[in-house]
Amino acid sequence: MYKAMITVRLKPSVLDPQGTAVKGSLHSLGYAEVEGVRIGKTMELWLNTTDEAEAGKRVDAMCQQLLANPVIEDYEYRLEKEA
Amino acid sequence: MYKAMITVRLKPSVLDPQGTAVKGSLHSLGYAEVEGVRIGKTMELWLNTTDEAEAGKRVDAMCQQLLANPVIEDYEYRLEKEA
Repeated sequence: MYKAMITVRLKPSVLDPQGTAVKGSLHSLGYAEVEGVRIGKTMELWLNTTDEAEAGKRVDAMCQQLLANPVIEDYEYRLEKEA
Repeated sequence: MYKAMITVRLKPSVLDPQGTAVKGSLHSLGYAEVEGVRIGKTMELWLNTTDEAEAGKRVDAMCQQLLANPVIEDYEYRLEKEA
């Protein structure tokens, strides 16, 4: 069993209106030191497999196909063996 | 300048219908090895401050007040010094 921890972020060149809204809210609450906010997704997947290399390839394919939008998002993942 | 990387996840006891939906989609695409999916948020904040201890306290307060819902979500963060 492997656990994949995937992070999906908007590419730096893509505007993040959600992040801008959160920054505005933080300013309203008095957190004036916040200069920028970018929001992304994190996904944990539990994979019933014993081959780490194969698991990596499959997770990469899942990101390309469903979990991220490669046109506007970057993704990264790491695998951890679980008992 | 510090960068805070915050991860917000649903508590393990809280159902994650979005994760369940993604798991179903992955199964439909042929990724039968996926046994579970949990989805969370990741936030990057750039803070105009020079005091790391103070920055940590402020980020913790932001999470409590706005960025996470402590009733159903756990959060963690780490700080990184930026040039």
